[in-house]
Amino acid sequence: MARLLRFAVLQSAFGDDMGRNIARVEKLVRDAARDGAKAILAPELFQGPYFCKREETRWFKDAYPYKDHPAVRALAPLAGELGVVLPLSIFEKAGEEYYNSLVMADADGALLGVYRKSHIPDGPGYEEKFYFRAGDTGFKVWPTRFGRLGVGVCWDQWFPEAARAMVLQGADILLYPTAIGSEPENPTLDTQPRWRRAMIGHAVSNVTPVGAANRIGDEEGQIFYGSSFICDEGGDLLAEFGRVEEGFIAATVDLDHIAERRASWGFFRDRRPELYGALTRQGV
Amino acid sequence: MARLLRFAVLQSAFGDDMGRNIARVEKLVRDAARDGAKAILAPELFQGPYFCKREETRWFKDAYPYKDHPAVRALAPLAGELGVVLPLSIFEKAGEEYYNSLVMADADGALLGVYRKSHIPDGPGYEEKFYFRAGDTGFKVWPTRFGRLGVGVCWDQWFPEAARAMVLQGADILLYPTAIGSEPENPTLDTQPRWRRAMIGHAVSNVTPVGAANRIGDEEGQIFYGSSFICDEGGDLLAEFGRVEEGFIAATVDLDHIAERRASWGFFRDRRPELYGALTRQGV
Repeated sequence: MARLLRFAVLQSAFGDDMGRNIARVEKLVRDAARDGAKAILAPELFQGPYFCKREETRWFKDAYPYKDHPAVRALAPLAGELGVVLPLSIFEKAGEEYYNSLVMADADGALLGVYRKSHIPDGPGYEEKFYFRAGDTGFKVWPTRFGRLGVGVCWDQWFPEAARAMVLQGADILLYPTAIGSEPENPTLDTQPRWRRAMIGHAVSNVTPVGAANRIGDEEGQIFYGSSFICDEGGDLLAEFGRVEEGFIAATVDLDHIAERRASWGFFRDRRPELYGALTRQGV
Repeated sequence: MARLLRFAVLQSAFGDDMGRNIARVEKLVRDAARDGAKAILAPELFQGPYFCKREETRWFKDAYPYKDHPAVRALAPLAGELGVVLPLSIFEKAGEEYYNSLVMADADGALLGVYRKSHIPDGPGYEEKFYFRAGDTGFKVWPTRFGRLGVGVCWDQWFPEAARAMVLQGADILLYPTAIGSEPENPTLDTQPRWRRAMIGHAVSNVTPVGAANRIGDEEGQIFYGSSFICDEGGDLLAEFGRVEEGFIAATVDLDHIAERRASWGFFRDRRPELYGALTRQGV
């Protein structure tokens, strides 16, 4: 019997008003749920502008313990109401530590826990090391009502190790909430093609579908390029956005068929963990 | 000062006559060297047909200790004559063990050693586990006259761990000799797009150029699809073959510029080896 999963990724711009941003996501979640999506992914840190563009202390006040975050308090009940799974990217305050986190709301509205972004970027326009402590949770796969979801957050998406770790832990699909666009100090660099290529590589190497949700819009000259997509387990695009559209895209995958394809390709049969020690050692 | 490396990959069909196959590669190596290439990659097991299509005992007699292999005895001196680096994919006999191996001939004709393919496929048309013991050397990076070359062999190309391990060991570029084409028991499956996507993913995730050399031709109904390519450190194609052309393609990369780009992207700054333990454990 086919084990079908229909899932969606949202693409939108976000402004200064947290309540309006959350309402915007609620509206798009309702649209996607009406279309049959059972897991619906919003972009990274959708509650506000991408504040990591600069190093400014005023943003720390917008971090919350994950269960108390306004986005979680608003959207976890929505997950329960609609019977959909919602991975929620938030700015988390845990005591005196701040994390770029992902809270998983299952389809009954229950919180399954928190994942803290493992890989933290830092560079012009993406000054995340000023805000976030590197995550301490390790990679997580979420046993939701509709499938086992592996979710990395933005910069995690460039790391083959993260994708592999999640699939080794049983992820049926990989999801990545994202905030990426232009490079303020390198205006001719368009990272969009390689952004897709890295994740499409994870799809192929792990025989696992991938969905990525990115924001759009011009935030004080930093242009987020959208291009959110869903690809299948061979890297073929099932749905994609351009750089300016707002809304949702969705696709249906057959998790049992994919599991058979994954076994048939034999990558997990032929891995050589005893030869991969270099990947887990610090330095050279 | 720019540290330029021009390198080439060869694409050809190969038949039953080992001497003619080696002569064919010699001709193409001379062509590529005349064009300025300093490292030149021939396809996997270019000495003969892709015998792993079926499980047949007669092929074991074509394996040799690597220093004695006719391809090595013919082409290592050619490397010295032309002053080029030649990675040579061969069927190696080591005592009673047989390996799918890569011998590295430096630009003075000296042999730098042998790498034994770590990942061995097995399935209809690609029955390699019948012939080859899984490699015991671990991944190698070769300090050649013209740069540090990381070379995986065919099936290795699908494994992000292999690419990462080689770049962690200092590879300037990644090379993959290959023999891949149609799937005898699944004639509608064309693996060419995902074959490229996996390696392009390695290029992006490691900020490292990649070259892949595949064979062409119809070997008793198994159609090898060529599509050899060279991409830059962002996955942009610098040169590519279609599915039937014979010859060489070459590209020039600036290793110092790439090293700066690799540092600037920060992937190796931000890796979390302490979180990657799942990759080196057997089982779940």
